[in-house]
Formats: sequence, structure tokens, C-alpha cells
Amino acid sequence: MKEIKIFSPATVANVACGFDVLGFCLATIGDEMIIRQTDKKGIKIVKIEGYDLPFEVEKNVAGVSALAMYNDLKPDCGFEIEIYKKIKPGSGIGSSSASAAGSVFGMNSLLGNPLNKTQLTNYAMKGEALASQSEHADNLAPAIFGGFTLVKSTHPLQIIELPTPSGLYVTLIHPQIEIKTSESRAILPKDIPLKNAITQWANVGSLVHGLHTSNYDLIKDSLNDVVIEPHRKQLIPHFDNIKSHAMEAGALGCAISGSGPSIFVLSKGEVVAKTVEQALRNVYSETGVAFETYVSEINTEGIKILT
Amino acid sequence: MKEIKIFSPATVANVACGFDVLGFCLATIGDEMIIRQTDKKGIKIVKIEGYDLPFEVEKNVAGVSALAMYNDLKPDCGFEIEIYKKIKPGSGIGSSSASAAGSVFGMNSLLGNPLNKTQLTNYAMKGEALASQSEHADNLAPAIFGGFTLVKSTHPLQIIELPTPSGLYVTLIHPQIEIKTSESRAILPKDIPLKNAITQWANVGSLVHGLHTSNYDLIKDSLNDVVIEPHRKQLIPHFDNIKSHAMEAGALGCAISGSGPSIFVLSKGEVVAKTVEQALRNVYSETGVAFETYVSEINTEGIKILT
Repeated sequence: MKEIKIFSPATVANVACGFDVLGFCLATIGDEMIIRQTDKKGIKIVKIEGYDLPFEVEKNVAGVSALAMYNDLKPDCGFEIEIYKKIKPGSGIGSSSASAAGSVFGMNSLLGNPLNKTQLTNYAMKGEALASQSEHADNLAPAIFGGFTLVKSTHPLQIIELPTPSGLYVTLIHPQIEIKTSESRAILPKDIPLKNAITQWANVGSLVHGLHTSNYDLIKDSLNDVVIEPHRKQLIPHFDNIKSHAMEAGALGCAISGSGPSIFVLSKGEVVAKTVEQALRNVYSETGVAFETYVSEINTEGIKILT
Repeated sequence: MKEIKIFSPATVANVACGFDVLGFCLATIGDEMIIRQTDKKGIKIVKIEGYDLPFEVEKNVAGVSALAMYNDLKPDCGFEIEIYKKIKPGSGIGSSSASAAGSVFGMNSLLGNPLNKTQLTNYAMKGEALASQSEHADNLAPAIFGGFTLVKSTHPLQIIELPTPSGLYVTLIHPQIEIKTSESRAILPKDIPLKNAITQWANVGSLVHGLHTSNYDLIKDSLNDVVIEPHRKQLIPHFDNIKSHAMEAGALGCAISGSGPSIFVLSKGEVVAKTVEQALRNVYSETGVAFETYVSEINTEGIKILT
């Protein structure tokens, strides 16, 4: 039976100013999955390592996305899924997206790639909806397309691949606390001041321009969130302190990754990113909150076949 | 005495999705001004043709911007200003911006260009504030820089020059009605739904990407305003009818120019722009509202010296 092993990357959604639309892909953090074609029809999750997740296909995001695609394509075979989960669920770096993307990407590869990346994202959104109660693509798009992405709309799904300037590095800090998705959502206002919305769309526009022109000063000026961060940062211990130390260490920007609790920092060059990492470790070491840090390049390839 | 004649172009602010931040410059509509260096110190407006505007320097937008720059630079000379006003005040295509930009651009040229374009815009904003009661640069930036511009912030002033895809044409219809600035402002909500704000910044991001990649389909998909237009369109007679006929005629997008009453339409190619013009004329001919229409390329040069 044919099988492939894939790497399904972690991702950062929102990217400061681009709540619900912008995202980018990480290189050094991600799940591994094995997808195996079987004679026996149907989808089966046969192995899960790393974290305690349901084996029932309908209750597992990788299973739900796989099933949505399987039921549409009706291939003359079945699939087994093995999940080697390395991205902690609830960490805010696209754990459920990695699972949802992995199964459909793997199946598509084994079937000879009948679907394009947007179609894969559409199926993966079905799995994502199981985790977040709504169909979002802001983590899925960068996981499947790589680099920076802009989800222009979800219905119909329109994904824009943005350019990635060379030498952009990400530092991540993941405080080992749980933020309930419901809480993280409930804290957001339904209405926002028009004035702040204007600031935010000016920043989105200038960030996109900065990515196109590799203008790091402009990228830095644009990585500001005046809409979501003021509400959500209270859920993340020592956020302001982390941010000020990251910026002092030379970062381009620092904001909440997705709905948190992870915080991401963008820097120009690996040296700065590692200086930032040390600065963040120093801040959190004194707080008693357990944490992990990572440094990664922007992953322009996205999800990929390992073997 | 040295003097120059300049062309100060009309401009379109907001550009559908980019309320308060985006703008572009027109080629075929604009004021002419003569700026003359004099031995006698001070600023004097010596001639105004076209529309009835105040000669008192402090009450004329061209005078106010000129004076702000003059008082800072303290040159060893004075200036006379002649204004040949062709852009009707209150038409929504940057009439006051053209005047405010013209005087400072002309003086700067006569003085050997000591100031850069951003500095000129800063002085011109003082004149603009006389007309609109607040310092805005969304018309000034395209008038002075040309092409498409994004005003990232006004304090400090940060202007981004965006690329202009070739072959983009504008059709304008100017209904001869007056919309009071106060009414046009009062009609806007202080708060807007977060959901709509997200749609708007996705559109701004994708429009900037579309301009960078000359992706006309994406430009078309991005030229939507879900925030301002639903409120302001009621001030403009037959707006929905104009828009649907423009789109049926093959336009990329149609929206209110600035705070109206002019409506702009973007099209790919002059042929479509002229077809659109005829469609708009047909709609308005049946309404009894007096109107004028124009077709123009995007002016990538901006304000310029004629002689």
C-alpha cells in the first residue's frame, strides 16, 4: 500500500494588524503525519502520538476534513491516518489547522493531486470548524500555501499569496497556560471605533506594500494592532513587558499569535531573533509561568512531503 | 520677476475600501495657478478666475498653506498667486487640495526645491484644514505624489506611493448638487461592526496586492466599501443605479469620490471607460439632475510645472 509522511507546519494568524485575514507559516514547528492508502474504503485514524486526541473520525479535525474530501471525491480506496502531534492544541499557533490540512494534503498527494491548494483549504476548513466552531482559513492558508497569506474572503474562499522578504525570522514564546476559545472571543467587542478601523486598514495596506518592497522599516511601522490586542492582551500574562523587551531587543513587531496565548515576534535576521528569544526568556523566567520559546524562519514552502 | 505656471490635478480620495487613507490622481481635470516671486515680502492672492473664492490670504486654502510654509522658511522675497480654478469647490474631487498643494508646490519650485514632497504635503494640510476643519492628506498625497497613494498616518505624516497598473482609466460623474461637509460627516457612525471592518481591511490589503501585481480581477474584487458607502450613498441621487450600470458596462469598480457628490468608476482601458461614461450619462439624463462627466487616465506624475 502506498503511504507518505508529511510535515504540517505551525502558523501564526492575524499578524498584528490583520485580524482574521493575515497569516504566515513557520519552518521549525509542525506535526508529522503518515497517510496510507488502503484497499478497505473509508477513513480511519490508526495512531495518535504526542497529545491525547480522539480517534473517532467525526471528532478529530484531521478526520473531519479528510471525510469531507473523501465523501466528495469518492475514491476507489480508503485512507489510514497516523498523527504525530507536536504542536500543542490550544497554543495559538494553528495546531488544529495543521491536523486539518495534513490529512487532506496527504490524501490529495496519494491520489495524484486532483485538487488545487484552494480546494484543499476548503476541505480543511471543515475540520477547522470542529475546533473553532466556525470556518476560518487564516491559519490554514499559510499552512497550505506557505509564506504570508491574506484570506480575502472565506465564502467564496479567496486566498492571496503575499511575498516574503528574505531574512525575516520569527521568535515565539508559548506560555503554558490555557485560554478558552470562548473567553478569547467573548472579550472582543462587536463594534469598534471607525477611527481605529481606519488605523488598522492603513496598517494592513502598508504591511502588504512593505512585504512587496522588502521595506523593513515600513513592516515595522505597520505591525500594530489597535483593535484586538487592547482587549486580548489581558488574557496573556506579562504581555506588555514581553512586547517592550522584544522591541528593545531590535524586533520589527510583537503581537498575539492567533487568539493566544503564544506571542510572536518578527525580526530581521536570525541574530536579532535569537537576541529577542533570550530577552523573552529573561522576562518569563522571573514570572513563575512555565513557557517554551522557538525561533524559526518564515516557511515559504508550507506543508510538504517528507518521505 | 520669476514666475511659473502649474497644473494642480483633481484627485479621488477613499477609493472604495480605503476610507481616509487611499487616493489617486487624475490627469485631465485640474486647476492652473501662476506663482510669482516678488521683491515685496508676504503672500498675496492677486487673481482668481473660475469660481468666487476669497482673496484674503487667511481665508483662502491656497493662501493658508502658502503662509504656513512662508512663515517657516522666511525667504528673502514674497509671492503672488493667481488661481485659475477649474475644479468646482465641493465636487468631491479634491478642489481645495488642488489649491492648497498648488501654492506650496509653486513656491517650492521657485525657491529651488528646498522641501521634499512629504514636507509640501504637511504645509498643504494646513490649507486643507481650512476647508475641511481637519488636517487630511488623502487628496493631497495623490495630488503631490501622483498615482495611487496610501496615507499611513497624518501625525507624523507618512505617505506610501503605490504602483499604478498600466491602462487604468477613471470615469467621473459629477451631479451638480451640493452636499454639506457637515452632513456628509454627521451621517457616518462613530462605531462600526468589527465584521465589516475585517472585510474592509481584507479589501485594502488585496487592493494593494492587486496594484502591485497588476491583477485587474483582484482589483475589481477589492473595490468594495461595506463601511462608508451604505451610509453616504443616500446623499447621492441614483447612486445604486449608476453603480449597477457602470458594472454592467464592464467597470472594475464604482464608488463615491471622497465625500461626494462625484462618483468615480475605474475601468481597464479607455474604451471601457468611455462606454461607462455613456452608460452613466444615460442614467442621469433621465433624472433631471444636472451633471458633468469626465474620463481620465490615472496621472502618475501628479502636480507639475506647465511653463
